[in-house]
Amino acid sequence: MSTVVMHNVVSVDGFIADADDQVGPLFDWYSNGDTELSEYAKVSRVSAEYVKPMMANIGSLVVGRHVFDMTNGWEGAPPAGEHIVVVSHRPKPDGWHPEAPYHFVDDVAQAIAKAKDLAGRRTVAVAAGDVGGQALALGLVDEVAMDVVPVVFGSGKRYFGSVDAQHLLEDPHVVIQGDRVLHLRYRVRR
Amino acid sequence: MSTVVMHNVVSVDGFIADADDQVGPLFDWYSNGDTELSEYAKVSRVSAEYVKPMMANIGSLVVGRHVFDMTNGWEGAPPAGEHIVVVSHRPKPDGWHPEAPYHFVDDVAQAIAKAKDLAGRRTVAVAAGDVGGQALALGLVDEVAMDVVPVVFGSGKRYFGSVDAQHLLEDPHVVIQGDRVLHLRYRVRR
Repeated sequence: MSTVVMHNVVSVDGFIADADDQVGPLFDWYSNGDTELSEYAKVSRVSAEYVKPMMANIGSLVVGRHVFDMTNGWEGAPPAGEHIVVVSHRPKPDGWHPEAPYHFVDDVAQAIAKAKDLAGRRTVAVAAGDVGGQALALGLVDEVAMDVVPVVFGSGKRYFGSVDAQHLLEDPHVVIQGDRVLHLRYRVRR
Repeated sequence: MSTVVMHNVVSVDGFIADADDQVGPLFDWYSNGDTELSEYAKVSRVSAEYVKPMMANIGSLVVGRHVFDMTNGWEGAPPAGEHIVVVSHRPKPDGWHPEAPYHFVDDVAQAIAKAKDLAGRRTVAVAAGDVGGQALALGLVDEVAMDVVPVVFGSGKRYFGSVDAQHLLEDPHVVIQGDRVLHLRYRVRR
């Protein structure tokens, strides 16, 4: 079975962007190193050694419609994995990259199930925020991966979205200090 | 000069208690070890080795009136340091432990200044939450110490109180994994 990992970059106070979706210093560590992660990212060696194998093991990625619309679905090229599952009540836009491996599902639980089918034994990554928070509340998340950036945001979009109940995690099995980021990864306690 | 350190135990999503001031699993690590920290706390050896010298170096502690009222000022015995400065518009209750080294100041900046005078070269600890957040926003905090417990709270009282602007921190100079707690400490970037 695939593992479902909720993931995002996050401020020390739990925000993944400000109220206007600006990430500000949260993304600085994606360009402050000398090790190439992708066409767009050069990170520290320490971060690359953690992120590269994690990225390589992603089979499918679940995101919300808001992220899809903001990025125009990365123009049809998944930033990680081979398949994207978009949680949305609205269908794929007419004529949008007809060959792209994108699947539109109107319910979080069904989206996770679809992403698991598509991922096989590989990881299902779920974007933290509204969709990730809903998946966690439904008991569908196995691990929580937080790339914690040393900045206080004060307000904005929350990593755990609209979660409003306590959920215990295990002690982190990953604690890796990069340059302007602390990589943490927790299993959800069952 | 003394260092001003904002401190509290905190959930992974930035809460120090729920809306009813209940700390739930946030305090589990204070009683899950075999190393005595105080009359009331037995923690893991790793946590004790971090917390003991930090506690021993505290000269004064700044708290809000809400904490004072909830604990009845720890019955006049400071839980750390020799002096407590209470930020409050109301004076010390009539007849309350007249000999206790408690000082009531109605303004956060003045409270920090008073606590610095009292601490000499030792540390001024400021309780995170409303008072700590106000001190940070005023530029009066040198370090942020977060004892991060692996639990999602979803809602409650925030570690950074009503802070509503971005504040950059340095990379953490303390990253120590205990048992049900991750000790992090950041200098505030100037």
